[in-house]
Amino acid sequence: MATKNGDLVSFRPDIKVLDATLRDGGLVNNFQFSDDFVRALYQANILAGVDYMEFGYKADRDIFNESDFGKWKFCKDEDIRKITQGIDTDMKIAVMADVGRTNFRRDILPKEESPIDMIRVATYINSIPAAIEMIEDAKRKGYETTVNIMAVSKVNLDELKDGLRHLAASSVDVIYLVDSFGVFYPEQIVRLSDMYLEVAAAFNKQIGIHAHNNQQLAFANTIQALTIGVSYLDATVNGMGRGAGNCYLENLLGFLRNPKYRLTPIMKFVQDYMLKLKQDGLIWGPDIPYLLTGILNTHPSSAIKFLKDGRTDYTAFEQELLDNAL
Amino acid sequence: MATKNGDLVSFRPDIKVLDATLRDGGLVNNFQFSDDFVRALYQANILAGVDYMEFGYKADRDIFNESDFGKWKFCKDEDIRKITQGIDTDMKIAVMADVGRTNFRRDILPKEESPIDMIRVATYINSIPAAIEMIEDAKRKGYETTVNIMAVSKVNLDELKDGLRHLAASSVDVIYLVDSFGVFYPEQIVRLSDMYLEVAAAFNKQIGIHAHNNQQLAFANTIQALTIGVSYLDATVNGMGRGAGNCYLENLLGFLRNPKYRLTPIMKFVQDYMLKLKQDGLIWGPDIPYLLTGILNTHPSSAIKFLKDGRTDYTAFEQELLDNAL
Repeated sequence: MATKNGDLVSFRPDIKVLDATLRDGGLVNNFQFSDDFVRALYQANILAGVDYMEFGYKADRDIFNESDFGKWKFCKDEDIRKITQGIDTDMKIAVMADVGRTNFRRDILPKEESPIDMIRVATYINSIPAAIEMIEDAKRKGYETTVNIMAVSKVNLDELKDGLRHLAASSVDVIYLVDSFGVFYPEQIVRLSDMYLEVAAAFNKQIGIHAHNNQQLAFANTIQALTIGVSYLDATVNGMGRGAGNCYLENLLGFLRNPKYRLTPIMKFVQDYMLKLKQDGLIWGPDIPYLLTGILNTHPSSAIKFLKDGRTDYTAFEQELLDNAL
Repeated sequence: MATKNGDLVSFRPDIKVLDATLRDGGLVNNFQFSDDFVRALYQANILAGVDYMEFGYKADRDIFNESDFGKWKFCKDEDIRKITQGIDTDMKIAVMADVGRTNFRRDILPKEESPIDMIRVATYINSIPAAIEMIEDAKRKGYETTVNIMAVSKVNLDELKDGLRHLAASSVDVIYLVDSFGVFYPEQIVRLSDMYLEVAAAFNKQIGIHAHNNQQLAFANTIQALTIGVSYLDATVNGMGRGAGNCYLENLLGFLRNPKYRLTPIMKFVQDYMLKLKQDGLIWGPDIPYLLTGILNTHPSSAIKFLKDGRTDYTAFEQELLDNAL
């Protein structure tokens, strides 16, 4: 049963904040961030007390053409070093490695040869054995590891429990509750967090949360989860992320009570760098089409296309979703 | 103690939805809605199963100059009739009456002579006796009545409890928990709702919630409150309302399970009428300046001015707030 962990005045030292702006935001602009942007974000995150900054994906260059994407789709170690060189910090660097889309044996070097600290493995429920193979590889190489089970809103609970137990028995450090489609309400997040935390307690693992903002619940769900013991919290600056986007890092930093966390550097980064992205025409954030895909528990791709096409006929889109997308 | 009332599959017949678009949204455009807009909203709300539509304020024309505002600042009975005539419905009509700004003896007619069904009295904690005078007047005249205690985030809890007891002992039907400054987190809303519900239970009253979206929590706070028994739910189309705006009616209708509620007519109203308001330059909705006034528990007026002035220097604004506005 959900029990409260901490209150609104004190702070929990086990909380870790991960900035996923480049990774989830990279899905908005095809990872086309300038080095200036990335370096400024890196410095802002350090000043804000962020614990981990996710730079992007470790995607396989045999599957994805390098010229089709910005460099943060691939997160080469030398590209990361170009950003971080000369900056002294204990903020850690994470990258995401998708099951089936990462040549992890080749592209993930031993930790002591790499600027990366944490490998975040993203998997669907049916590829958990492949995820565990990647986790164990990363662990052997010396990395912290997390695993994101995606699209759990479409997974039956018994299967999810089995998956959680298998992952918890692996070497992974943190298991993430991911609301890929932005479908969950806070009371469901509390119930799911409870389930994840129960498995985690038995295996001495941590639980994280990665929320999407289809129903304007990403921040609410994140703080509801942390209130009962979830400790790794994903957010992005200005909520930048695919479709409806993510939990706003600004809101999260405004909520957290640990004095190491500071909102001001992130606001400064927004005024200096993020506003321009929106002016330049990038689109993300809550909107009716994403509300619909959230309510209907489906992938946001159709809503992204709807908005890219400049459409506003929501009622026709609703019928298309009911006819085709479910 | 908070106990769950209802689940995510069934529905609670005691739930009532109130659309406050014209009233709270009127604070964005000075109540300058066209009759065409208001009539279309009225019809959309009927189709959507909304229980009450708030048309605006019953402001005193001796205090406010009629030529300075659109007509929904005053909600004359004949202006309401012009909208509703020829439309047969059991959706009820509400207006808001501010303590000290309403000539209620003159302007609120006996119910049988008026198209209005509900008088919503808005008060601060220090004018509760004056609010009760208005409530009893409206009740004698035959109206349903609600009372909004505003700015409770700045009221000490003992005083609030006293205020609640006095209001509960009056003839009022519904007492609203109002998060005027968008400062409360869901766990605080649950605690406050508990307090309001306890008083309500003793006096056989209902509790309502009116949330603001400074921290992107208006919808989350509304459904958290309803989950433990709050039954009157305020929302506005597209969250239109002063500053950060309100709980989105779209999100709320997507959540509620009573088959009488329908999201589609509201989406159609958005595509046909609301999008134009934003294109025409009206500004509302969550943004960093409102996040700051929310976190700092202060009135959004300075943030509204900041955005109207086209400023984006959030970090300077934060310092101004810390220096002056608290």
